[in-house]
Amino acid sequence: MSTDDDINYGEGDARQRLLDLAEQFYEQFEDGDVPRLQVPTRTKTNIEYDEDSDVWVYGDRTSTRSAKTVSGAQKLLKAVYTIDFLAQQLGEDRSSTLRELYYLSESWDLDEAQFNSQDESNQLIEDLEIVSGVTREDFHMRPEESGATLMGPLLIREQTRRGEREIHCQEDVGEGGYQIPNNPDQIEFLENDAEFVLAVETGGMRDRLVENGFDEEHDALIVHLKGQPARATRRITKRLHDELDLPVTVFTDGDPWSYRIYGSVAYGSIKSAHLSEYLATPQAQFVGVQPEDIVEYDLPTDPLSDSDINALESELEDPRFQTDYWEEQIELQLDIEKKSEQQALASHGLDFVTETYLPERLEAMDVL
Amino acid sequence: MSTDDDINYGEGDARQRLLDLAEQFYEQFEDGDVPRLQVPTRTKTNIEYDEDSDVWVYGDRTSTRSAKTVSGAQKLLKAVYTIDFLAQQLGEDRSSTLRELYYLSESWDLDEAQFNSQDESNQLIEDLEIVSGVTREDFHMRPEESGATLMGPLLIREQTRRGEREIHCQEDVGEGGYQIPNNPDQIEFLENDAEFVLAVETGGMRDRLVENGFDEEHDALIVHLKGQPARATRRITKRLHDELDLPVTVFTDGDPWSYRIYGSVAYGSIKSAHLSEYLATPQAQFVGVQPEDIVEYDLPTDPLSDSDINALESELEDPRFQTDYWEEQIELQLDIEKKSEQQALASHGLDFVTETYLPERLEAMDVL
Repeated sequence: MSTDDDINYGEGDARQRLLDLAEQFYEQFEDGDVPRLQVPTRTKTNIEYDEDSDVWVYGDRTSTRSAKTVSGAQKLLKAVYTIDFLAQQLGEDRSSTLRELYYLSESWDLDEAQFNSQDESNQLIEDLEIVSGVTREDFHMRPEESGATLMGPLLIREQTRRGEREIHCQEDVGEGGYQIPNNPDQIEFLENDAEFVLAVETGGMRDRLVENGFDEEHDALIVHLKGQPARATRRITKRLHDELDLPVTVFTDGDPWSYRIYGSVAYGSIKSAHLSEYLATPQAQFVGVQPEDIVEYDLPTDPLSDSDINALESELEDPRFQTDYWEEQIELQLDIEKKSEQQALASHGLDFVTETYLPERLEAMDVL
Repeated sequence: MSTDDDINYGEGDARQRLLDLAEQFYEQFEDGDVPRLQVPTRTKTNIEYDEDSDVWVYGDRTSTRSAKTVSGAQKLLKAVYTIDFLAQQLGEDRSSTLRELYYLSESWDLDEAQFNSQDESNQLIEDLEIVSGVTREDFHMRPEESGATLMGPLLIREQTRRGEREIHCQEDVGEGGYQIPNNPDQIEFLENDAEFVLAVETGGMRDRLVENGFDEEHDALIVHLKGQPARATRRITKRLHDELDLPVTVFTDGDPWSYRIYGSVAYGSIKSAHLSEYLATPQAQFVGVQPEDIVEYDLPTDPLSDSDINALESELEDPRFQTDYWEEQIELQLDIEKKSEQQALASHGLDFVTETYLPERLEAMDVL
């Protein structure tokens, strides 16, 4: 993994970092201090867009969970039980889901340590991610949502519980492609013949590209985003960019919700600002469907709804979209009051997207 | 494929059957008749539960689309254009999605043949399925939703556009499993060491079973339903039962919506009554979570909402659930007013589901 800062995302020392946290509490006790944990304040006002790295980061404000109050003491108690569970899980090379952790707390011997809601346990895990500098995946916490699929000229090796598996993502998979595991850091890239990554929002379009052999003809790695992408999908996309030096392009429907999908691949989200360096690919480029394409190719459209218009207007205020390109496109869309889906390109025939639209767009973007 | 009636679900003659339909119109013209198409009436009152086959089937009432009226003539015109498109698609061994068909109609030379909404084109495809006795998959119409994944001791051969792929669903796949293609009839079962199928509702539980090696220990084929299962998922489940003689068991959350998931695997749905023989597995057994389990294992619960209660009450009226077993379970649930998720079993530890719960339930069901 490529990281060039003081945050270590390898799982090697995840267990040690958790135990260090617990030890910190002991030391505070020993020194006669009230045990406490300091985390960045995670409200909208303490999150800023970092112009240099092009991603969201936390500001300087911090909050303290201190055992001075009963509720603060309970939070630390829950943290200690959770650290104990995670350290044991890592020691046994096992894993669990966020939901399992919530339910599992019912088996803990101290009622006060049990979680009252899954929001509470989810938030604690995020706190631990931030404080320890280790990602949830390296705690072996699995997501509920499954990752996406991958199709293209890439040979990978996946470390599974049942041994290593070498899989070529075109030759050794069916038409459904290679299913990305929950923790894509278990994957090693062995041989790459791909020229770029094309991340696609919808299943219908992903299947069209595979059927038309777009990955073969242009040496593309087709990643299926499945709508708003899971962490695993964003992580593998970032790794493909950073480690294989592949340009990343994102192909979605032409509406404000899809621009947010692009935004979450490229810039990360406010909710997971602490993970931007792990998940976001600021170099990712938007292919379309652009409002400009709706006009140029005379695509079938639907009218913008009120919530579409609101979403577009709030994107105009969003620092991630404050570029000439996005302002032009969004204002054009507000002007024509229309949106189009990826599959609307089929109105010019089933091959239009692979023979005309994508080659033209990708050439204009200097990717092809 | 095993079918024992006059409906042929092979794709070999799908094209011919469509052309036969078109020819029928010509003959009607030649005989001086007004062209027409007769389809079973697809309203709730013309659908009945067939006690013998345990699935939904159409009753005797039919509706006629006749060119006597302008709107009827337009329907037939659209049918002819669609048949022409499908015949060409099959001739070229290509495929498309329902949404692409809708958009593609904009490229047809006659405005009157174009679809006004996707509902209209979807309904026409269903009509053609019923009248021709050929499934949408055999017209090469792909679904939008992707199929599920499969993990277990089974060697398959998938016929892809890029040649044949032989894949063992444990040894040749990563932890994500084998991704079922959109048309699972492209799959041939080569070697099977599985004893039964365990179809699982949630991704979190599917991953738990795979991590704990449940498929290896018990020779289970784990199918991930991903909530309400796609057609491809129900189809492969049926084929595993019919062709490999495997018992099929369904493991879901313990709430009325999940019982419907079981119902759609086992008995089909009213909406797709014409496909029951292709998609439904009436021999599928429900594993749980049963309301009885909530009590017996003292599982963490949520209270039933009003819509949960309504759904349970409507299930009591549903012929598919009119067995002593289901009446007892549903009445119990209405009585305790609680529901539990699959992952609530983790309150007894991460191994409880694979070491205790499933072995006990599957033994009680005579599957293990």
